[in-house]
Amino acid sequence: MKNIVVQKFGGTSVRNLECMKQVLNNVRRPLAEGSKVIVVLSAMAGETNRLLALAKEWSATPDAAELDSLVSTGEQISVALFAMMAKDQGLRARSLLGFQIPIVSNASYGKARIESIDGARITEMLKDNDVLVVAGFQGVNEHARITTLGRGGSDTSAVAVAAALDARMCEIYTDVPGVFTTDPNMCADAKKIDRISYDEMLEMASMGAKVLQIRSVEFAKKYNVTVHVRSTFSDEPGTIVTQEDANMEAVQVAGVAYDKDQAQITLVGVLDEPGVCASVFTPIAERKILVDMIVQNPSREGRTDITFTVPRADLDQTLKLMEGLMPEIGYKALLSDKSVSKVSVIGVGMRNHSGVAAQAFRALRDENINILMISTSEIKLSCLIEDKYTELAVRTLHQTFLGQYQVG
Amino acid sequence: MKNIVVQKFGGTSVRNLECMKQVLNNVRRPLAEGSKVIVVLSAMAGETNRLLALAKEWSATPDAAELDSLVSTGEQISVALFAMMAKDQGLRARSLLGFQIPIVSNASYGKARIESIDGARITEMLKDNDVLVVAGFQGVNEHARITTLGRGGSDTSAVAVAAALDARMCEIYTDVPGVFTTDPNMCADAKKIDRISYDEMLEMASMGAKVLQIRSVEFAKKYNVTVHVRSTFSDEPGTIVTQEDANMEAVQVAGVAYDKDQAQITLVGVLDEPGVCASVFTPIAERKILVDMIVQNPSREGRTDITFTVPRADLDQTLKLMEGLMPEIGYKALLSDKSVSKVSVIGVGMRNHSGVAAQAFRALRDENINILMISTSEIKLSCLIEDKYTELAVRTLHQTFLGQYQVG
Repeated sequence: MKNIVVQKFGGTSVRNLECMKQVLNNVRRPLAEGSKVIVVLSAMAGETNRLLALAKEWSATPDAAELDSLVSTGEQISVALFAMMAKDQGLRARSLLGFQIPIVSNASYGKARIESIDGARITEMLKDNDVLVVAGFQGVNEHARITTLGRGGSDTSAVAVAAALDARMCEIYTDVPGVFTTDPNMCADAKKIDRISYDEMLEMASMGAKVLQIRSVEFAKKYNVTVHVRSTFSDEPGTIVTQEDANMEAVQVAGVAYDKDQAQITLVGVLDEPGVCASVFTPIAERKILVDMIVQNPSREGRTDITFTVPRADLDQTLKLMEGLMPEIGYKALLSDKSVSKVSVIGVGMRNHSGVAAQAFRALRDENINILMISTSEIKLSCLIEDKYTELAVRTLHQTFLGQYQVG
Repeated sequence: MKNIVVQKFGGTSVRNLECMKQVLNNVRRPLAEGSKVIVVLSAMAGETNRLLALAKEWSATPDAAELDSLVSTGEQISVALFAMMAKDQGLRARSLLGFQIPIVSNASYGKARIESIDGARITEMLKDNDVLVVAGFQGVNEHARITTLGRGGSDTSAVAVAAALDARMCEIYTDVPGVFTTDPNMCADAKKIDRISYDEMLEMASMGAKVLQIRSVEFAKKYNVTVHVRSTFSDEPGTIVTQEDANMEAVQVAGVAYDKDQAQITLVGVLDEPGVCASVFTPIAERKILVDMIVQNPSREGRTDITFTVPRADLDQTLKLMEGLMPEIGYKALLSDKSVSKVSVIGVGMRNHSGVAAQAFRALRDENINILMISTSEIKLSCLIEDKYTELAVRTLHQTFLGQYQVG
């Protein structure tokens, strides 16, 4: 149905009565335009952490299914309070929990994946209601047990409901005005992006521009749901995340991102034999440590260097793993560096514009910033640099690619 | 199944981690005897009131369905925490919410009546679990919406589950050792009752001996579930509430109860015409005011006096109603008294022992306590007296009927 708008509000947007009233104002906007509204809410800010702290007190290793049933009460409280307030204001509204729709997920408690949503049932309920208030973050599995979709899962709930209803728009409300070309705290020139493609948004989000959950963007891309990231506390339009179009390709670079949570490890003089990479990275993967960049030099005299990055918190554990591999792999030295960070330029236009990499390298060189590692994808160029240069590099790259550039 | 024990714990019994550990000790007792255990829990003490306060802040007149969904989170939190603690301790346990069993109720939000419980599904789940932790107080209606059973509904949940499973025992844990022959705070001689019939318990409970919810006793009587009221914090047996047996009838009086929440109203010189009583009590009933005792004297010269009692909080409203009836009924005077209370002696043995009333009247007379009103049932004698004599009357009646009496 094209006259349905899905709106999602996070924990800070529903943290108290005043904020919920502001949410109600946002709900009234599409209502006034004749649309029905599905409001997806998170738990009130702090509530999920309160419940997790209780679980930790009650159990050293909380049962995953019980933990999901516990924390799902946070959203249940939000939607009940919001629905009763909306009814008080004369709106035809009711709350909907995951099991009531149902939003069916698999049984992976704590990080469940949505499998299906009964859009017909929601549509049926829209006959008697103008506002349906859906508990985000939660689903129900085939055993009628409550599941949760993982942190930030409410974004995914909203996009999934929008997909199930073929809604014309999924609005994700947050406490910032939209997605920026880079971190405004780091670069005063940062501008709000009016339109961005799913792929660019995925790269921006994974780089730390944490406005929108990665999984929800993947979902939006898969089901072609247009997402509008905007501020709860302003009527200004935010950022539209949508399918790539020709217009977007005219723009070389959409944004500049960075990630300070990087640590570098180098295995020097590894015997260059088949399977050596598997030997290095399998034990790391088994411990769920996320390896980001990987570089292997061409071998000389049968030996090579392998360099990769991991989150800083995982550095010590990863080094221990590598030390344990010494007899098997036979490297000559193990080096590591915690003082590194990654800066990236992102844009679908990079595919058709050669020279972005060269331009980026020149810009960094002009500021005497040494590049430690490079990795590239179709729409992204990332450079590992010394940590202390992060802010300078971001400002330099932003000025180079987005300084004169009119966004949109 | 006869090897199932149902145990219910109230809010004070689950108010923190230490108390829940004590609950777990109580669960282990029947487990050690080879029984499976269904644990029915209330919300942690204070939680329901916290949620009701939130509702009040959010809405002047909270929608009843949303309110039920809101407050039901209290029990959801209790059962999740308890189940994860039990699993931590190596027990095969899981939580069950009202919709998961399901406990099907009608749609009277806030005071729903249980219509059916899927005992087969519970039995099925007992194959993989030794302890099922059921959220009390809640059900689900035919529209898949969460309902609550009203304050104290967890007792009813427990008895209803016991009935559905044909459990051998339903243990209601509380913070007192059992049901007493009278209020121990008023009478130092009060003794714990070992066995009491459903009917006696109903009269005791309605008199203010608030150990057990009246509705749960009605349920237990209807489905013949034996209830054991006992202390969470002691291994001592408490009070068994069960079918009447011959042994019980040997005891004239099971207990002495009182109710200080009484106010007396007299309509003097009412025209004694057909329908006058209906005219008096219909408007009172319409306002859900509970009339307790009613006395009408034989009429003289076509006029009579009607005296009745209502809860003190409803006195002013009831007097206004009566004033409004003046033109219709044409009484001569309207009298009222707030300083009255009711004392009662209760026992199934009274049916076969004449003389209980006379003995009670003599005992009160010997203490110069004037009797304002009298009402009787098969197993109960109630006297309205001046408020200030309540404690003396209770002690006197208790001494008269239960002073030398060995309970049980």
